[in-house]
Amino acid sequence: MKIGFSELMSMDAVEIRDLIRTGAYRSHTAGLGQGKLQANLAILPEAFALDFMRFCQRNPKPCPLVGVSDTGDPTMSTLGRDIDIRTDVPAYCVYENGELVDIRFDIVDLWNDDFVAFALGCSFTFEHALLAAGISLWHIDNNKTVPMYRSNIDTFAAGPFKGPMVVSMRAIDQDHLSRVVEISRKFPMAHGSPVHWGDPTAIGIRDIDLPDWGNAGPIRDGQVPVFWACGVTPHAAIEQALLPICITHKPGHMLITDVDDVAEVPVFRSIHPQTQKRKRD
Amino acid sequence: MKIGFSELMSMDAVEIRDLIRTGAYRSHTAGLGQGKLQANLAILPEAFALDFMRFCQRNPKPCPLVGVSDTGDPTMSTLGRDIDIRTDVPAYCVYENGELVDIRFDIVDLWNDDFVAFALGCSFTFEHALLAAGISLWHIDNNKTVPMYRSNIDTFAAGPFKGPMVVSMRAIDQDHLSRVVEISRKFPMAHGSPVHWGDPTAIGIRDIDLPDWGNAGPIRDGQVPVFWACGVTPHAAIEQALLPICITHKPGHMLITDVDDVAEVPVFRSIHPQTQKRKRD
Repeated sequence: MKIGFSELMSMDAVEIRDLIRTGAYRSHTAGLGQGKLQANLAILPEAFALDFMRFCQRNPKPCPLVGVSDTGDPTMSTLGRDIDIRTDVPAYCVYENGELVDIRFDIVDLWNDDFVAFALGCSFTFEHALLAAGISLWHIDNNKTVPMYRSNIDTFAAGPFKGPMVVSMRAIDQDHLSRVVEISRKFPMAHGSPVHWGDPTAIGIRDIDLPDWGNAGPIRDGQVPVFWACGVTPHAAIEQALLPICITHKPGHMLITDVDDVAEVPVFRSIHPQTQKRKRD
Repeated sequence: MKIGFSELMSMDAVEIRDLIRTGAYRSHTAGLGQGKLQANLAILPEAFALDFMRFCQRNPKPCPLVGVSDTGDPTMSTLGRDIDIRTDVPAYCVYENGELVDIRFDIVDLWNDDFVAFALGCSFTFEHALLAAGISLWHIDNNKTVPMYRSNIDTFAAGPFKGPMVVSMRAIDQDHLSRVVEISRKFPMAHGSPVHWGDPTAIGIRDIDLPDWGNAGPIRDGQVPVFWACGVTPHAAIEQALLPICITHKPGHMLITDVDDVAEVPVFRSIHPQTQKRKRD
């Protein structure tokens, strides 16, 4: 089955998850399920779950925790209708002792009663809001991956999880800076406001043209490099913890939830109709 | 040592915690440590900690988790300088199997290597913001406790933690309603926007004059009852879980943190000076 791009763009989150679940769609999720929160995924054995939750709670900007499963239960009912985390992400990376050992389209046969799934907010949400406000983003205009760097900002450790904060950089016109800060601050589930702007060396980045991940982009006259806490931070923290097993989404291949990306809290089925009505305030 | 009210009001959070730690101050914390986040406390055995964190994550409006200790470690370094959770709260309630068995001024001899301490945001924060915006609150003007009710809104359960959402009610002038919603929404660490306003029976409250906790107050002509998710919710969820032991703050006797109550994230020692500068945006 071949699905056209415009057809994909017109589908809601449930329809796209259905395609993903059946294997009919296995690509990245940028721009899909418009208006719904997308999330990074980390699946860990229960023995590490409490420390990982502590790590997320203590580092909410790089690790905005939006959902957590019961142990052994692959559903994530606070994030959407009938989400099955074993099948509803387009592609998964499997790590053993910190090493990537497999990339898969589902993890049905890997799932076990000891796993806990964590969903973390991602930058797609605030990028949509910036674009909607007329702020252009070079990596999107040029179909590149945002450049990411290991900074010298330390995370607050929890158990085996620790390490530097990874930051993503977007070049912003000086005139737009305060508006960009203000807009992104409205999305605490998507890294919130920047952690730094201006001189990259102030946060330990020696060469802005040599990102640790993603593609370097230009910083034009009148632009300032703006750095946000990045969702690669928890992945780096997990990697160095050398867990016996860990499963993540493949970069760019996110879980599309049923939670509105402007929702006040990351909980599907709002607790009361009035909250629903007000949530786009 | 007798400390005058004006002297207390002029002290910062660290100075007040010092008084509390040494036993020189053992009363409620309303209005103290102005501008700093105050927090409810729950201390549980580690075996229940993961489920309790899940409960908080799934119910962020009644249970805004702002800090969590390492197991057995009484410090809470993300919340402030040298916080010792065994001594820095003015009064504690000790529960065994869901029953209150003791009220104490410190828990040094009760603390053990198996305990995890949780701090949760409280309504003081948004009430300050409402007062600062010129919105008067009857229970404060009249030195009463805000009325609280068990609603028919269910929380999302996690392990043994479950039950109805408890809500607090403040009567608000109809003209101020949208402003009140907007202001309180800015404080996700303090219950955020209301969960309901208007007809109390819509959320299962049969008699507004008979609160389950606190004091009933008048709803005058032109006023509407406005209901917020309440920090009693996690306490009720813990109580019905009949844990072998659990320690909480005594109502009104909160932990005063070093985190600004308008901070974007509940983490003391902001990750970068610029975030510090911007945090009152």
